[in-house]
Amino acid sequence: MAVSGQAAVLEDGLLDELRAIFGDRLSLADAVREQHGRDESYHAAHAPDAVVFPADNEEVQAVARACARHHVPVIPFGIGTSLEGQVAAICGGVCVDLSRMDAVLEVHAQDMDATVQAGATGSKLNSYLRDTGLFFAVDPGADATLGGMAATRASGTNAVRYGTMRETVLGLGVVLADGRFIRTSRRARKSAAGYDLTRLFVGSEGTLGVITEVTVRLHGIPEATSAAVAAFADLDSAVSTVIETIQSGVPVARIELLDDVSMDAINRFSGLSYELTPTLFFEFHGSTRGVVEQAQTVEAIAGEHACKGFHWATDADERAHLWQARHDAYYACLALRPGSKGLATDVCVPVSRLAECIVETRRDIDESFLIAPIVGHVGDGNFHVVMLLDPENADEVAEAKRLNERMVMRALAMDGTCTGEHGVGTGKMEFLMAEHGEAVSVMRALKRALDPDNIMNPGKILIV
Amino acid sequence: MAVSGQAAVLEDGLLDELRAIFGDRLSLADAVREQHGRDESYHAAHAPDAVVFPADNEEVQAVARACARHHVPVIPFGIGTSLEGQVAAICGGVCVDLSRMDAVLEVHAQDMDATVQAGATGSKLNSYLRDTGLFFAVDPGADATLGGMAATRASGTNAVRYGTMRETVLGLGVVLADGRFIRTSRRARKSAAGYDLTRLFVGSEGTLGVITEVTVRLHGIPEATSAAVAAFADLDSAVSTVIETIQSGVPVARIELLDDVSMDAINRFSGLSYELTPTLFFEFHGSTRGVVEQAQTVEAIAGEHACKGFHWATDADERAHLWQARHDAYYACLALRPGSKGLATDVCVPVSRLAECIVETRRDIDESFLIAPIVGHVGDGNFHVVMLLDPENADEVAEAKRLNERMVMRALAMDGTCTGEHGVGTGKMEFLMAEHGEAVSVMRALKRALDPDNIMNPGKILIV
Repeated sequence: MAVSGQAAVLEDGLLDELRAIFGDRLSLADAVREQHGRDESYHAAHAPDAVVFPADNEEVQAVARACARHHVPVIPFGIGTSLEGQVAAICGGVCVDLSRMDAVLEVHAQDMDATVQAGATGSKLNSYLRDTGLFFAVDPGADATLGGMAATRASGTNAVRYGTMRETVLGLGVVLADGRFIRTSRRARKSAAGYDLTRLFVGSEGTLGVITEVTVRLHGIPEATSAAVAAFADLDSAVSTVIETIQSGVPVARIELLDDVSMDAINRFSGLSYELTPTLFFEFHGSTRGVVEQAQTVEAIAGEHACKGFHWATDADERAHLWQARHDAYYACLALRPGSKGLATDVCVPVSRLAECIVETRRDIDESFLIAPIVGHVGDGNFHVVMLLDPENADEVAEAKRLNERMVMRALAMDGTCTGEHGVGTGKMEFLMAEHGEAVSVMRALKRALDPDNIMNPGKILIV
Repeated sequence: MAVSGQAAVLEDGLLDELRAIFGDRLSLADAVREQHGRDESYHAAHAPDAVVFPADNEEVQAVARACARHHVPVIPFGIGTSLEGQVAAICGGVCVDLSRMDAVLEVHAQDMDATVQAGATGSKLNSYLRDTGLFFAVDPGADATLGGMAATRASGTNAVRYGTMRETVLGLGVVLADGRFIRTSRRARKSAAGYDLTRLFVGSEGTLGVITEVTVRLHGIPEATSAAVAAFADLDSAVSTVIETIQSGVPVARIELLDDVSMDAINRFSGLSYELTPTLFFEFHGSTRGVVEQAQTVEAIAGEHACKGFHWATDADERAHLWQARHDAYYACLALRPGSKGLATDVCVPVSRLAECIVETRRDIDESFLIAPIVGHVGDGNFHVVMLLDPENADEVAEAKRLNERMVMRALAMDGTCTGEHGVGTGKMEFLMAEHGEAVSVMRALKRALDPDNIMNPGKILIV
């Protein structure tokens, strides 16, 4: 572990150095520090000792160099929507808030790619792309920054069609632990020129460097889009429909599962009136004829699996309302119990094991005293249980952790992963050995090679 | 550099250790050693001091441990089809020939993935998958092993639709420099559980460890397939057709360019009678109606770009003949000058720059005395110039290197890469700094972290 930052920041001259660089873009205010030490999860907040708001790569390099000299941790911060404590300054240190670095730097419409500063959000980029016929496809529930999405290897509702950040990032600009700046790749669609640094930094959660620029693939806005809502008698039927849809090769753009509890939550939160039963939300992208074909194929599959109703939504407003409700699902679930926090599980399994995994999980939840809706990007084999709890109530936290651990071990036994898209942070560190075994020592060797003093977001992913 | 292997192998007891493990699966025969020190390129052969033929992971671990103790290089060998000297034992050492580890270990048809030992070839896997309705899509010209394809981050004709080995590999089994065995990932389609070791080893060319198992995504065999051959008046028109096809969003499965010289080569080699003019080979995958739509769209685009003839090939035998000719193109080019070797360039640029890049390259070739046909996976922005030369003729080698260097620098100036799919080996090391700059020092740090004694395929990718 690095030395605690607090003393160093306040006593060691670092504060003067930072003030000289950042002026009033350095904050020591309690409210600012506290806001930057917490994400949207139940994990305990840890305020950094100081927060800086750089304007460009050079300023990020300057803070990295200063912190390296003083052996003080550097914690990157996008918009604070992580779910595994990734932004908590558990060893103190300086939070680097990238929200002012939110420019769209380049759009190459012919090459279907764009480069943004790390602080740009998905909605900002897509708004910028409005007139190009292109869109940025990675779509987590929150309107996260692209730097944050890259750092956690995020995905979301349409990864089943367009891939996660792993497939979407073409290259990164990264400030290393010693303050050097590198670009991990050029814009060619493929390259075999040396080690894949892009993919190494995607998912590294700030522990190997600070991502400051992100180049991503874009996709053409489809000629036609349609959506459908399918209600099922039980979870097993819904998940069997998912599995068969994926295996049939239908190129669904989105295929999302909400159980009866989640449906109740979004009905209340978004003023909807869906039936309280396991439900799939679909979206289809393609040619006008193609989306009709896709929807018909899926309706036929659903019909063989106790589908209680298959409702098409071709109207753009209705679709927007539907997907907004899905995107708000996490907040809707939290609102089921006002004041609660969420422990969101994130297992992902091979799709052939998905039905078994979800049904057994639902049984665990039914036997527990916690309220815990299920929502999921089931086309990838990934789903979340949002366990609503009072972080001050030790019994509730213990029960949520017990259920989470059972889920993780079940997923691992099915050749799955403890986290499909939220990352490790502090919340999943305990499962990394169970998942990767000896490979964890390779990760540790990489961490030591790139951050020998352990000052880049220390205490996340790995204990060094 | 590691110490030279020869002395160590022969004098230091290592030979006895290897003989105890491998018995008659250890070879010191000149012919065997020489065959294992050369690939299909013009690069000078360097025979290893010994060749071993392991049967399982444990035996690969045993040879790695023995070589680590004696500080002797380990060079993995698949089937010897690399093009940048990747298998040359330039520091001596022990060649690990994985050809006897060619089992298909697991096929999960429902999850659309398969795990093979590293020595299995693409054709072996696809033959095994015959009755599943699935296929392995990565398709380099040679029938390479999956371990070799993973190690060089290979791609080939249908990467434009199905991705390269970067997108195709789900996980690897790897023997590390010290003989430990790790698995880089489980079978879930996505994961955010720590550093992406899979992508780190994909493209590492044996310099970080020996890949012994490969888990890959499979794809459903499309309902319908059709192909087309389109002849153009000039290169610019052909490449403009490619660019517009990609930008139109047509999901072409293959789109290959051959210039007039390549067409001459494949006509002679494969007994065909195509017109000697720049030509595109297309393949379309989809529903019966979909492939017709795709082909019509592309025919219309070609018609706007001086297409001299658009010939559909829906007959399976005709298609097979056409693609076999394309796959044999490298050998066909070499046969234009019997006894010659090939220096195959491999630049890849953003597709918006492709026409400019190819036309300027053709001009360079026209002004040179070398015969140098152009073939390429142009949908990705990737193409090859096969410069035919006598490796003993210093003038020819110098001229080929001069042209290659001009191409690489042109590609880098266009935000492209020196190698789209062949890898670095010994042939592209000199360009790595120009392409990646400071990032090369990060690659070097990774190499040192995982192979501190520099015994894993030393002298490739990086000088440590």
